[in-house]
Amino acid sequence: MKRKNSAKRKVAYFLSNNVNKFREVARILEEYGIVIALIKLKKKEIQNDSIEEIAKVSAEEAAEELNLPVVTEDAGLFIDALNGFPGPYSSFIYRTIGVEGILKLMSGVENRKAKFKSAVAYAEPSGKSRIFSGEVSGDISVTAKGDKGFGFDPIFQPYGYEGRTFAELDTDEKNAISHRGLAFRKFAEWYISKVR
Amino acid sequence: MKRKNSAKRKVAYFLSNNVNKFREVARILEEYGIVIALIKLKKKEIQNDSIEEIAKVSAEEAAEELNLPVVTEDAGLFIDALNGFPGPYSSFIYRTIGVEGILKLMSGVENRKAKFKSAVAYAEPSGKSRIFSGEVSGDISVTAKGDKGFGFDPIFQPYGYEGRTFAELDTDEKNAISHRGLAFRKFAEWYISKVR
Repeated sequence: MKRKNSAKRKVAYFLSNNVNKFREVARILEEYGIVIALIKLKKKEIQNDSIEEIAKVSAEEAAEELNLPVVTEDAGLFIDALNGFPGPYSSFIYRTIGVEGILKLMSGVENRKAKFKSAVAYAEPSGKSRIFSGEVSGDISVTAKGDKGFGFDPIFQPYGYEGRTFAELDTDEKNAISHRGLAFRKFAEWYISKVR
Repeated sequence: MKRKNSAKRKVAYFLSNNVNKFREVARILEEYGIVIALIKLKKKEIQNDSIEEIAKVSAEEAAEELNLPVVTEDAGLFIDALNGFPGPYSSFIYRTIGVEGILKLMSGVENRKAKFKSAVAYAEPSGKSRIFSGEVSGDISVTAKGDKGFGFDPIFQPYGYEGRTFAELDTDEKNAISHRGLAFRKFAEWYISKVR
């Protein structure tokens, strides 16, 4: 159940260097009356195969450093035929081999199943933290399509959208089914019901 | 100048989960009379484009946690035509797309230049730390060759070795020119001259 803006607005501090991500998240959370404040501090990310663990450590360290309750998100594209590559290192891999590199690795590969996963971590300076996860299944397309979204969106076709990629969906369409949308809605439901 | 075993042996604690790496390092350091003790504690690695920074943070955190002086190494293969991919995430990328994935990405690519880089970090519980770097240039081969070494060794041809890959060299031959050999010899020279 979505709740419309009520009397008292809650503020969440979101640590990220990705403005595209911020735009999506701000739009999801505003439906819950949550105002999001972007903090562009370089977050410390550990190397780990679990995006939940990466997000949790980032949030905990930042909450302690800033002495504020902090939200972070770690996300990745996990391709079955590539054993979960590019996974937690999607950002570096996007910057180096990019969309074309993934398509080259997938050329001639029949099994095109993939998942986008998101882990949202909320942490308080006291050390308390919580994780909210979301994922969406789809196929890796044969060519890149669309110019919306960011990252690997142009090659991810979520199931049930007639082969359209994330980059061919509007922000609201993408948010409705995306890994990030799912995880942040779980967070929002919890956050607005949380007793301060 | 290499120094042969002298009266007093020094011990260095080496944090790693890679036994192949340990074997190479032990062999390099024994020429300096340094005995290396492997500690297979899962080291915490941050995500960073600099292997120096990754090694430094790992060493510092482990030195504090263990209350011991600690040596760690971070290494990676940096391919020019792939903008430094697989770089600091060589281990994850080896486990997912492997040697064959790199060869597929490089198929039809003319510029095959690459570097193996190593960063050795030494840290004390006091917080003091030092970094030693090494690198070696070569080409990415067209096919995988050899069964020695580990990781991406079968596709890296160091310059001056008639096209032989790291996996076709003996450990001593590889150590003599490798990124790891260079970095650890710098460390060893400093470590044995260091006043306790």
